[in-house]
Amino acid sequence: MKKLDHIGIAVKDLQKSKAFYEQALGFTLTGEVLVESQGIKTAFFQLPGEINLELMEPNGANQETSAIAKFLSKKGEGIHHICFEVDSLETTCNKLKEQGAQLIFKAPIKGAHHSLVNFIHPKTTSGVLIELAQK
Amino acid sequence: MKKLDHIGIAVKDLQKSKAFYEQALGFTLTGEVLVESQGIKTAFFQLPGEINLELMEPNGANQETSAIAKFLSKKGEGIHHICFEVDSLETTCNKLKEQGAQLIFKAPIKGAHHSLVNFIHPKTTSGVLIELAQK
Repeated sequence: MKKLDHIGIAVKDLQKSKAFYEQALGFTLTGEVLVESQGIKTAFFQLPGEINLELMEPNGANQETSAIAKFLSKKGEGIHHICFEVDSLETTCNKLKEQGAQLIFKAPIKGAHHSLVNFIHPKTTSGVLIELAQK
Repeated sequence: MKKLDHIGIAVKDLQKSKAFYEQALGFTLTGEVLVESQGIKTAFFQLPGEINLELMEPNGANQETSAIAKFLSKKGEGIHHICFEVDSLETTCNKLKEQGAQLIFKAPIKGAHHSLVNFIHPKTTSGVLIELAQK
């Protein structure tokens, strides 16, 4: 694990949440990204301490089947995952599997910003969905 | 906001969760603290990127009334809060109230490691309990 990269928050109304995180909390908006394959619209912020914050709202044609839409209807708004950057996704995932961690995908998938990602299942992390990203 | 200080995770079995975060994820355990007033037993880790991780398990005489016990019975294990260090809790809280944010306590309370803390209610943060700590 290289560093904690970002915290992802599932939101119902990106405009409203964005306004709060930008104006009330004073975080710097660094970009907005449509991730059509995942059916979400995201906004990224730079947090003090060089960690990023990702707000994610269901969006577009795939929104009903998106993991974020399912999360929102089951749990409501809130923290969805935390992401660590890793040097080698393959090495990290192999080590984790040896330790009994369960991964979500058999092979890495494409994440935001052209990264390769996989996730550790919350079953093995005390309820925390942990994303691993190789940039 | 000075920096993201830590991420707090509610857990049912501190020993078991601690083992996973230490052995499988390779994080460095920096200490264990009994917070009797809050009815919890905690373990702190240093994450890569200078952020800390706090695992919190209900413990001791006050455990049944602890916020963590209530969280676990309602939502199960998972991320409970994220904490930002601030220079002045008073200044930050006043600014937040002006922006319409709702705080949990009328006056700051004592947190772990002799800090002064308050929390922003999840209602105003898209479901995220945000702790503010003046060290």
